[in-house]
Amino acid sequence: MSELRGPVLVVGTGLLGTSIGLALRARDVDVLLSDVSPEHVRTASGLGAGHAVPDDADPQLVVVAVPPDLLAEQVADALDHYPHAVVTDVGSVKSGPLAQLDGHHGLERYVGSHPMAGTERSGPLAGSAALFDGRPWAVTPHGASTEAATSLVTELAELCGAMPVRMTPQEHDQAVARTSHLPHLMAVLVAGRLVEAPEAHLALSGPGVRDVTRVAGGDPALWQQIIPANRDAVLALLDDVHDRFERLRAAVAGTDLAALGELLAEGRAGTRRIPGKHGKAPRPTASVFVALPDHPGELARLFADASNAEVNIEDVRIDHDPGREVGQVELVVDLERAAHLTEALVGRGWTVHA
Amino acid sequence: MSELRGPVLVVGTGLLGTSIGLALRARDVDVLLSDVSPEHVRTASGLGAGHAVPDDADPQLVVVAVPPDLLAEQVADALDHYPHAVVTDVGSVKSGPLAQLDGHHGLERYVGSHPMAGTERSGPLAGSAALFDGRPWAVTPHGASTEAATSLVTELAELCGAMPVRMTPQEHDQAVARTSHLPHLMAVLVAGRLVEAPEAHLALSGPGVRDVTRVAGGDPALWQQIIPANRDAVLALLDDVHDRFERLRAAVAGTDLAALGELLAEGRAGTRRIPGKHGKAPRPTASVFVALPDHPGELARLFADASNAEVNIEDVRIDHDPGREVGQVELVVDLERAAHLTEALVGRGWTVHA
Repeated sequence: MSELRGPVLVVGTGLLGTSIGLALRARDVDVLLSDVSPEHVRTASGLGAGHAVPDDADPQLVVVAVPPDLLAEQVADALDHYPHAVVTDVGSVKSGPLAQLDGHHGLERYVGSHPMAGTERSGPLAGSAALFDGRPWAVTPHGASTEAATSLVTELAELCGAMPVRMTPQEHDQAVARTSHLPHLMAVLVAGRLVEAPEAHLALSGPGVRDVTRVAGGDPALWQQIIPANRDAVLALLDDVHDRFERLRAAVAGTDLAALGELLAEGRAGTRRIPGKHGKAPRPTASVFVALPDHPGELARLFADASNAEVNIEDVRIDHDPGREVGQVELVVDLERAAHLTEALVGRGWTVHA
Repeated sequence: MSELRGPVLVVGTGLLGTSIGLALRARDVDVLLSDVSPEHVRTASGLGAGHAVPDDADPQLVVVAVPPDLLAEQVADALDHYPHAVVTDVGSVKSGPLAQLDGHHGLERYVGSHPMAGTERSGPLAGSAALFDGRPWAVTPHGASTEAATSLVTELAELCGAMPVRMTPQEHDQAVARTSHLPHLMAVLVAGRLVEAPEAHLALSGPGVRDVTRVAGGDPALWQQIIPANRDAVLALLDDVHDRFERLRAAVAGTDLAALGELLAEGRAGTRRIPGKHGKAPRPTASVFVALPDHPGELARLFADASNAEVNIEDVRIDHDPGREVGQVELVVDLERAAHLTEALVGRGWTVHA
C-alpha cells in the first residue's frame, strides 16, 4: 500500500474529475489538472482541486474523466504522452473503450475504473471531496493489465474514500446494464407516455409514478452516449425484458391470473435482492407516516422529536401529491423501533399512522 | 352543500374504510361499520371509526371499501338492501364493476369514486383520519347517476379533506392506467431482472434502480386483481409502450443516435408534466447535498439548521448506497433559496455540495 504518491493528472475537470482532485488534495497528493476548457481548470483549481498541468509533467497516474465518446482517444493520448504513467478512466462503460484501444502500445499500464457516483449534476462547481465516501468503485483490469497498475488504481479508489470492487470489464458492463441502464430506459418509456396524457388525467399522479420516472429526467445527451457504448449488454437485457413483456401482455389480454401473479411475484422478489445500507443484507424496516403542516420549521421539529426518541431514521419521503397543504412525511425506521417512535411522536402531539 | 348528514355505512373496514370512518367521525357524522371479519369491525370501532351496523339500519350513504374482485357484488347488495341510500365505492378501477352492474335496479343511486391514497399498507390499524387530506379523490358518475347522488359523494370526499376531481369512469380508468398501473408493471419488469443477477453485480446498485423498482414491492395478490380489472386501458398503454420499446430496441441495436435521443427527450418531457406540489405548476427547485454521519440526532440537527435559515424543504432523499458510513442527504428547495441554504449550512459546519 501507499504506492500512490502522485502527482496525479486529472484529464477533464467536470463533476467527477474535480471531485477526485479535491479528495486527493485532502490526502496531500499532488494533483495536476487539464481540460479542453481553461475556464473549467481555473474553476477546479480555485476550488482547491489541484493546479494546471505544466508541459514537462511526469505524472505517476493519469485519471481520464471525459464524456464516454472521448474516452478511448484520451486514454490513448495519455499512454503515449506519459510513457511511465499508469492510466485509468472513470467512464460508465468499460468494454467498448477497451476494444477501441486494442493493440495500443503500453496498454498494460491501463486499468479502467468506475465510481458509482451521481451523474445528474455536472461541472466543477458540483464537485465535492466527499462524493465517493463509501461508494462502490469498480476497478476493471483487462487481461494484459499489470498487477502494479491494478493496485495503483485500487489505491486511488481507496484514497477517495470509496470501496473498490474488482471485476472484469465485461462483468462491469453487464452489472450496470442491469442496475442502471435498463432501469433508465424503462423509466424513459413510462415517462414518455405522460407526454400525450390529458392534463386532467395527470391530476391523479401519486408518488409511485414520480419515483418510477425520476431518473428519466437526466440529460438525454449524456445517455445518448452511455447506452450505445454498452450496446451488447443492454441489448441482451432488453431481449430478456421483451420476452417478459410479451408474457405480461398476453397475461393481461387473456386475463391469465396465474401468469400475471408469477410476473408480479418475480418483481417483488427482485426488489428484495437490492443490497441494504452499507452493503449489508436489508434489515426489516417499517414506515411511520406523520401529517405535517407545509411551512418551515415543522420538519425540524419532527426530526428533533424523533431524535429525542433515539430512533435512527433510515429514509424519509415527503409526499408531494397535489393539493396537500398538510403534507405527509414517511419515516422509514428499523422495524423494532417503529412502535416506540409512533408512541413518542403521538406523545409530542403529532398525527401519526403506522 | 351539507346534504350529507349520515348515517354513513362503511362496508369493509380495511385501511380505506377505517380511514373514511375516522374522518367522518371527526366531522360528527354517524358512521356504521360492517366487514366479513367481526374482528376488523371491533378494531375499527375501537379506533373510533364508528360502530357495528344494526339490522334495522337506514343509511343515507353506503361506502363500499372491499377488494376489487368483490366490488360489484357488494355494491349490488347495498343497492338492494338499502333502497333509499346513495351507494359509492372506493375501488381503484371504475368501468369494470359498472359493467357488471349494468341494468341493476336502483343503479341511478350509484356513483363510483376513488381516493388517491396509499395502498402499500393495509388493515384497520393503518387507518387515519388524515389519510385523504388534500389528496385528489376521483368522483365518477355514470350516465344514469342522479345529480343528487353525485353531489352526496362529492361531499363525502370533501368531508374527508380530499379534493374531488369529477370525471367519467372511462376517463378515470385511462388516467390510473397511465399514472399508476403502467408504472407498476414496468417497475415489475425491471425488478424481475434483478432476480437472476449475480450478487457481485448488485453491489453496483445506486438510488436510481431503487426508485424505479420501489412500487414493485407492493402486494402481488392485490395487483393481480387491479390490473385485470382495468384490462382494456392497461392493454392500450402496453401497446403504445410496445411500439416505443421496439423503436428503442432497434435504435440501440442499430446505434441510431437520433432515434435514441428522441425517445430519451420524450421521456424527459414526460417527467416535466407531472403536477407540482398542491397541484400547481412545478416550481424550479435545486438540490443541496449534505454529508451526514449515520447516527441518531444528525438529521435533527441538519433540519434545525435549515429551519433556522428559514428555508422550506420541498423534498428529502437519503442516500442508501452500500458502504456509506457517512450518508448523503439531498435537500430539494426552491431554486432561489438554494444558495442561501448552502451558505447557512456551511456556516454551521456542514459539508455541502450544490
